[in-house]
Amino acid sequence: MIVALGGGIGASKLLAGLCQVIDPSELTVIVNTGDDFALHGLTICPDLDTVAYTLAGLADRERGWGIEGDTFNALGWLDRYGREAWFNLGDRDLATHLHRTALLRQGIALTDVTDLIRRSLGVRARILPMSNEPVSTIVLTDQGPQLFQEYLVRDGARRAVRGVSFEGVERSRPAPGVLEAIDSAKGIILCPSNPVISIGPILAVPGIRNALRTTEAPVMAISPVVGGRSLKGPTDKFLAGLGHEVSALSVARLYQEFLDLFIVDRLDAELLPGIEALPVKAVAAETVMHNLESKISLAKEAVSCLASLRPA
Amino acid sequence: MIVALGGGIGASKLLAGLCQVIDPSELTVIVNTGDDFALHGLTICPDLDTVAYTLAGLADRERGWGIEGDTFNALGWLDRYGREAWFNLGDRDLATHLHRTALLRQGIALTDVTDLIRRSLGVRARILPMSNEPVSTIVLTDQGPQLFQEYLVRDGARRAVRGVSFEGVERSRPAPGVLEAIDSAKGIILCPSNPVISIGPILAVPGIRNALRTTEAPVMAISPVVGGRSLKGPTDKFLAGLGHEVSALSVARLYQEFLDLFIVDRLDAELLPGIEALPVKAVAAETVMHNLESKISLAKEAVSCLASLRPA
Repeated sequence: MIVALGGGIGASKLLAGLCQVIDPSELTVIVNTGDDFALHGLTICPDLDTVAYTLAGLADRERGWGIEGDTFNALGWLDRYGREAWFNLGDRDLATHLHRTALLRQGIALTDVTDLIRRSLGVRARILPMSNEPVSTIVLTDQGPQLFQEYLVRDGARRAVRGVSFEGVERSRPAPGVLEAIDSAKGIILCPSNPVISIGPILAVPGIRNALRTTEAPVMAISPVVGGRSLKGPTDKFLAGLGHEVSALSVARLYQEFLDLFIVDRLDAELLPGIEALPVKAVAAETVMHNLESKISLAKEAVSCLASLRPA
Repeated sequence: MIVALGGGIGASKLLAGLCQVIDPSELTVIVNTGDDFALHGLTICPDLDTVAYTLAGLADRERGWGIEGDTFNALGWLDRYGREAWFNLGDRDLATHLHRTALLRQGIALTDVTDLIRRSLGVRARILPMSNEPVSTIVLTDQGPQLFQEYLVRDGARRAVRGVSFEGVERSRPAPGVLEAIDSAKGIILCPSNPVISIGPILAVPGIRNALRTTEAPVMAISPVVGGRSLKGPTDKFLAGLGHEVSALSVARLYQEFLDLFIVDRLDAELLPGIEALPVKAVAAETVMHNLESKISLAKEAVSCLASLRPA
């Protein structure tokens, strides 16, 4: 079993490739739920949905989020009622939120709800939320704290980042199956997701960081920073805001205590010696995933790196 | 102020005409909420919505329910998740249910929620739910009790009706404004709705029947039964199931204790003497509303009947 940890769009690109390279039933994805929030009475889990839609082959390829060909008629009408309409809820996507919210209200755990959804969508890979307890990523901006989705989507990630906190994380526990998956994995991949607000919340759930440290499985990561900039999203803003240099080396440092291997982009080949000195094995590869071929190619590289790390 | 009492589609046809005949701001509609039910965690109020969409000029003219031009993409996806998909939830319509459910959960009363919705939709007439307390119309069929929407929509009104009950009605109170509207009305119209399951629940709310009896305003009704058959919906099934003859006369009898005037279709002119003998003033008119002209024409007839009843 290969175990991948990740957030939304960055992770999904790699996962789309990975599912072409390995049998999807041999893949478990542990997903960030720090972005989860409530809107219009619905529990919305952006990263879980992006991963599920991607693995189902239903994700919108242009936008990266939501369902391909979805319509936005309910959203227009919510706007008419004066409700918040900044979060793009597609009509089909809305069905996912309705279904999940109704099941959660029945007392079904998020792990089981997520499993029902991915099975309904025909996803063969296992998708696990990092925790069944709610955790909220709070961005501390120069104008006060904000919920992550409000910071990113509603306000366009414009404010300067002073820090990040994960509300509720100290009381959270890894969801059932998470520690077991890490312990018994054949290899673990940290996807090229934002290390602060996509991977960060997962690592902050008590027990997960330690499981990564103690597992016998090789642990590798792929840098979401290429040439000193984030490929997409505000990773650079978050690294800088937390006082880190915006570089692949900074990301490797955040993971170094459990990391066996780190893939950086060929553009960052000059960083390899610094990463090796952490010490973390470092590999340069083509990490920009602009089409399915490049996703598959990076996934193959990741799988072969894991194989190279496994004791013979 | 003209006060109309009614349920869904039958009432809405007349109301669409009435709004062309009188200033809509002079109209208050008291609406059945016995059909309200919960689905996918949403509070759905079919009659309130049909009335609001109709008065906003947004109702689908073909179907009679829902919003014109609406799409059904969320519903298809709910079906994919194995959820109940028998109740036709349009995507725009879904926004109404989400908005209402979210407001109700905030503790806002249904009266106020309904008022917010009709204002957002640009409806100038006042729309009042019969009660803020939940009342559920239960159909006692030959195979046991069923919620009204399940009986009608899910199961296609196929089972024989043995009786009807309104769960919760004895603990319900007229919504704020309902008794006042009846007391101070210039005239009251019972729309050509199902007398058992559309008007029946309204009359069953403690206090409303008595207000109709004691108001100084003239009270009239229009028969939903023409030539011994209901124009639409299972009115005939319900009248027969409760042991009534399926005729306009039966409907007049159900209302006789507070009714001043009853309009029957020209086809039922032979029933006029029997109605007059109740004694209720009886008028024959064209009551089949197949287009806007016939809706306006019946509304004009109703308004002139009310004028004829008012003390000079």
